[in-house]
This record gives sequence, C-alpha cells and structure tokens, in this order.
Amino acid sequence: MDYYSNQINRLVTELSGLPGIGSKSAQRLAFHILNMPKADVERLSNSMTEARNTVRYCSECFTLTDEERCPICKNPKRDHRTIMVVENTRDQAAYEKTGKYEGVYHVLHGAISPMLGIGPADIRLKELLLRLQKDADEVIIATNSSLEGETTAMYISKLVKPTGIKVTRIASGVPVGGDLEYIDEVTLLRALEGRREL
Amino acid sequence: MDYYSNQINRLVTELSGLPGIGSKSAQRLAFHILNMPKADVERLSNSMTEARNTVRYCSECFTLTDEERCPICKNPKRDHRTIMVVENTRDQAAYEKTGKYEGVYHVLHGAISPMLGIGPADIRLKELLLRLQKDADEVIIATNSSLEGETTAMYISKLVKPTGIKVTRIASGVPVGGDLEYIDEVTLLRALEGRREL
Repeated sequence: MDYYSNQINRLVTELSGLPGIGSKSAQRLAFHILNMPKADVERLSNSMTEARNTVRYCSECFTLTDEERCPICKNPKRDHRTIMVVENTRDQAAYEKTGKYEGVYHVLHGAISPMLGIGPADIRLKELLLRLQKDADEVIIATNSSLEGETTAMYISKLVKPTGIKVTRIASGVPVGGDLEYIDEVTLLRALEGRREL
Repeated sequence: MDYYSNQINRLVTELSGLPGIGSKSAQRLAFHILNMPKADVERLSNSMTEARNTVRYCSECFTLTDEERCPICKNPKRDHRTIMVVENTRDQAAYEKTGKYEGVYHVLHGAISPMLGIGPADIRLKELLLRLQKDADEVIIATNSSLEGETTAMYISKLVKPTGIKVTRIASGVPVGGDLEYIDEVTLLRALEGRREL
C-alpha cells in the first residue's frame, strides 16, 4: 500500500474498510474515483454524509427514514392494525417490492442471537410491545428463516399471544421456481409440514 | 429503489454507479454507511473529494501522485536511464511491490485499442518520446499481455528503435506456481518460444 501517494493510499484504506471490499476492489474503486469528474465525486461524497446526517428511525415503526414518521406509517390507506415484524429496513423493502402487502411494519434492527450476545433488550422489541398496547389485529412475524430469526419469532410469539392479538409467521418452504433436487433437507421438511390441501 | 426514503435512495444510486457494485451490493454498502459513526463517514467522504482534488499527474512519468514530481522520479538513487512503460498506476504499483526494479516508469494511462477507438494520441505516448529525447539507455515495455497491450508494445517498439535506445518487452509465460493443465494454449506456446537454456 506504500506504492501509491499518500492521498491515494488514504482513499484505498478508507474504501477497503467497507464490507465486501477487499484490497484489490478498493484499488480499482479508488482509481475509478480519481478518474471521475470532480462534480461526480462531490455528489457521491455528499450523498454519504448527507444520508448519514439526515437518516433516522421512524418514530412509529423504527425503519430508517428522512422524516419523523416514514411514508408508510404516514399513509392513511395502509392497514395500521396489521403489523409485519422484520429484522431490518432491507427486509421491509423486500416485502414492499411485492406491492401486495397493505399493512404496516415494525423494524427490529437485529434478531436475538445468544451466540453474538444479542438479547431481547438489544433490538426494538420493547417498542413493538408499546405499539401493541394501542391497537392491533395481527402481528405477522417475518424475521429470517435462520436460527436467530426463528428464535426471535418464538420469543415475540410468546410475548404477544397472552395479549390476545393474533400472531402469525410467514411460511417456510420451497422457493417458487426452486428445484427440489437442490433444496436442503430442512427446507424440504418444512415444506412438507406446511402442506396445504388443493 | 422507491422502497427507501429519498436520502437512502440517493446514496444507493450513487454507490451503484461505481464499477463492480450492483444494486444489492449498493444497498448493503448504503446500510453499512448509515450504521457507521458519523466521524467515520465524514472521513470516508473526505478521502474521496480530497484525493480527487489533490491527485494529479507526475510531470515526469505521468503516474498519479500528490506532488509535482512523484517520489520515484524525485529519488536520485533510482536509475533514471531505464524507463519501464506501464499502462496505469496500478501496474506500476505491481512492479514496485516486487521491490527489485531500480529504474523509473512511464505511465501511459491506457493502451492503443482500435476496438474502443483509443489511438496513439489518446495515451501518454508523445510524452514518452519527449522524455527519450533527453537521455535513456533502455525502454522496458510492460504493457499487459492483452491484444491492446501487445499492439501498444509493437507501436512503441517501432517508434523507439530508430532512436538507437534499447527496447525490451517483459516475458510472457507460465506464471510461477501455475499448473500447466490449467494454462491456455497461447500462454503455453509463448512459454515454449521464450524457453531458455539451463
């Protein structure tokens, strides 16, 4: 890394601190940036600091947003009595892309993981329970289908059930277009357990 | 991309404009940046604009550097009569990493490519010839072993030979540690042609 001038080294070092960007990619990106028009570099650089400085948690669902309340929580056309619980804003976006979900969300910002020392107090669970005290018909748990996601789902279900609010979990099974041959045993068993009459 | 707030969308769009960063990686990077300490984002962002604003071409070898003349050109211990011609600053760094090359460099910033419409006037060839008018013992052509690199090497060799300066080309062959079985035919033939007595 001492083979470049100071400013280039500094840029390469900063870029290689980003996830999924190794030393080679950082060098390629750095030289791409050095060859970009100055105005474009300015825009790229501002988009980072401005996003970092403006983006905060929605006061209702805790997704990352520019405003006090996110557009989904502000939308009166959404069903505010159906709350889908997701691990993060990207998972929320994945469901929004389907264009079919009409309810609102609750973003946990993580999942319970005894391995990583992440407990129920480290994610936005208390905030979910506070929301549920107001009014809700159904809580749809859409945490990932991983060990952490399942643990979190079980935990939420135990907390919410006594309140009488309906708690559901999104289905596990064979992905649409998936070839059975390439699907792991656990998923195959889940799909069997979750079979429905035709 | 409309599933995030404006600032996040803007950041994702800017990041996905970088080479090798698709829409998914851009989202992952964006959320990583949003979760970084503000000071770190500031540092990352400054490293880009500052590098872009300070870095320029060395007045002698045309590598990218912070100064009027790069550290290699300024170093009196380097052999200024041996000039290695490379396509870009990264290739120069690759040779510097060997720690064994004592000469100086000339950075072309590209290679002749009729396919891409890049002609001899589009790279720093004129500057090389001007340098050679002063004083030089040997020009080592270390352009890539691609069609463009070879074309450029041939072109330079034809220009330089009449001046009486020695022109050499780095060897093509089997990479050290390479397994013959996995090496393409052209490289195998090059290695055969370039064989040396033991």
